[in-house]
Amino acid sequence: METQLSHNDITHKTVVLSGGVGAARFLAGLNQIVDPTSICAIINTGDDIEFHGLVISPDIDIVMCTLAGIIHPGQGWGIIDDSDHCMSMLRTLGAPDWFMLGDKDLALHIQRTALRKQGLNETQITDRFRRAFGVNVTLLPMTHDSVQTHINTPAGEVHFQEYLVRDRAKSQITGIHYHGITGAHATPDVLHSLRSATGIIIAPSNPLVSVGTILALPNVRQLIAQRHVPAIAISPIVGGAAIKGPAVAMLNYAGIEVSALGIARHYQGLIDGMVIDNVDAALAPAIEALGMAVCVTDTIMSDDMRKAHLARTCMEFMATLP
Amino acid sequence: METQLSHNDITHKTVVLSGGVGAARFLAGLNQIVDPTSICAIINTGDDIEFHGLVISPDIDIVMCTLAGIIHPGQGWGIIDDSDHCMSMLRTLGAPDWFMLGDKDLALHIQRTALRKQGLNETQITDRFRRAFGVNVTLLPMTHDSVQTHINTPAGEVHFQEYLVRDRAKSQITGIHYHGITGAHATPDVLHSLRSATGIIIAPSNPLVSVGTILALPNVRQLIAQRHVPAIAISPIVGGAAIKGPAVAMLNYAGIEVSALGIARHYQGLIDGMVIDNVDAALAPAIEALGMAVCVTDTIMSDDMRKAHLARTCMEFMATLP
Repeated sequence: METQLSHNDITHKTVVLSGGVGAARFLAGLNQIVDPTSICAIINTGDDIEFHGLVISPDIDIVMCTLAGIIHPGQGWGIIDDSDHCMSMLRTLGAPDWFMLGDKDLALHIQRTALRKQGLNETQITDRFRRAFGVNVTLLPMTHDSVQTHINTPAGEVHFQEYLVRDRAKSQITGIHYHGITGAHATPDVLHSLRSATGIIIAPSNPLVSVGTILALPNVRQLIAQRHVPAIAISPIVGGAAIKGPAVAMLNYAGIEVSALGIARHYQGLIDGMVIDNVDAALAPAIEALGMAVCVTDTIMSDDMRKAHLARTCMEFMATLP
Repeated sequence: METQLSHNDITHKTVVLSGGVGAARFLAGLNQIVDPTSICAIINTGDDIEFHGLVISPDIDIVMCTLAGIIHPGQGWGIIDDSDHCMSMLRTLGAPDWFMLGDKDLALHIQRTALRKQGLNETQITDRFRRAFGVNVTLLPMTHDSVQTHINTPAGEVHFQEYLVRDRAKSQITGIHYHGITGAHATPDVLHSLRSATGIIIAPSNPLVSVGTILALPNVRQLIAQRHVPAIAISPIVGGAAIKGPAVAMLNYAGIEVSALGIARHYQGLIDGMVIDNVDAALAPAIEALGMAVCVTDTIMSDDMRKAHLARTCMEFMATLP
């Protein structure tokens, strides 16, 4: 199968493995401090879900809308200054309403679904959308195959979005499954971008449900392991807590220590260096003992300056790695 | 094939053959002056079109939203106090934007498309929607098959909505086609409602593109011709002009005189009586000469009182017919 995008868009890039909010904020920092066309994000699609007959790709939309500068800044998802007129009418018509979709937001799902129906694949659609928004970072959905992250709970198996949004991440986790992963393939664009990467960064995203699905695709882990360029990860765990999302419960379920050290152990063999927060400085020696370099810095991306600072620190850190 | 709705909803009703705005206003009048559950509207679906992958049924929505009291009163289509946030984002994403869809309006198309995907047919979907809106008139889409009214113009063949909305009805008409009509069937509910009707009213809708498609479905014209109950039509032409829509150009193309008399001739053999406007009173003798009864009244439905008045006059007129 051919790559979908031009050679220029996927060759010799800083490749970022991305989930949703954390990755989006990191990429927004990178977008400020390097040439955006030198960045390529491989984005998790395991959280994708269909609502009202529309295909919804939360992580792609979060990354894209963040880079487009139209994300709701407080939430980190959804579009700024959006309204809910369509959703309230859908509610009147008896449609499920626990997954809030704003009016502007809906346009993405409507047009994505329409273009899929016309035969375009998600790589082509995402590329068309990001250009329409003036985003210069290349955005690559991890796969064109259906991969769906499901969570087992005492009440039964639910889609990740049902667990996270509908049930507010309150259910006990008794299993995590990437449905469809066995038959799924990373896209040719994803594999090409990894093969030709000038550096690989694992964004501060959920190691299990965001980065985990990307790494579970055939050849992705091997390509990263065989690279001749530096690879680093930014810990999504700061001071023993997750900045955003349900990572803590998931790490607990998976038996991964909820700390930057636990994350480092989880990525051991895959990366050369870990970026951890100042509050976790004491963990640096233990991480170094795993054979990794460590960079200690401020990883809380609460404003544009801090996003840029973290991105710059990561690029400088990568440059020091062999 | 079985009827979809309960026997009670489609038996012994005043059946109204309906297009869009004119029919909707007439039904709103009828809705005020008789038991709404005694009315059944058979609605044209030949204007249906797909946009952004969504199924849009303009006439069904116009009738339903008018009866629900949420129609945009000035336009006669679209929902009152709607916004265009989704549409403006669709425009950003490169989607065609000449067919305006408000945010609330979109919910109808999204949910209709989703329910079709789930296997419901348009009769079931329309019934679910009208109940959600508290509409007590039975609304029957004329067919479950795809019928598409196309207009031939010197520049080529276009969908009726392209002719009407995109090209603002400015093209010369060189042909009118109901694509798909040959293989299409009226629904069992439509046929049952006609067989058991207590009276049949042809609403003041476009005789060619609104009523014409309904009458072109197999058995519909025959069932009306063979009826043992009164049937009347309300002229959509008043003083030689159409109240709404592109009827004049279409009648001219079809060689039908643009007058209440021309409409009466067009429906000759199908109805017992014509309701015409006061301004057309002088045409009454010529219409009577065709063998029809004539009722002369105010047919301009500019407010609720006038809608009710016209509906009452029509019901009283029907009661005088043998």
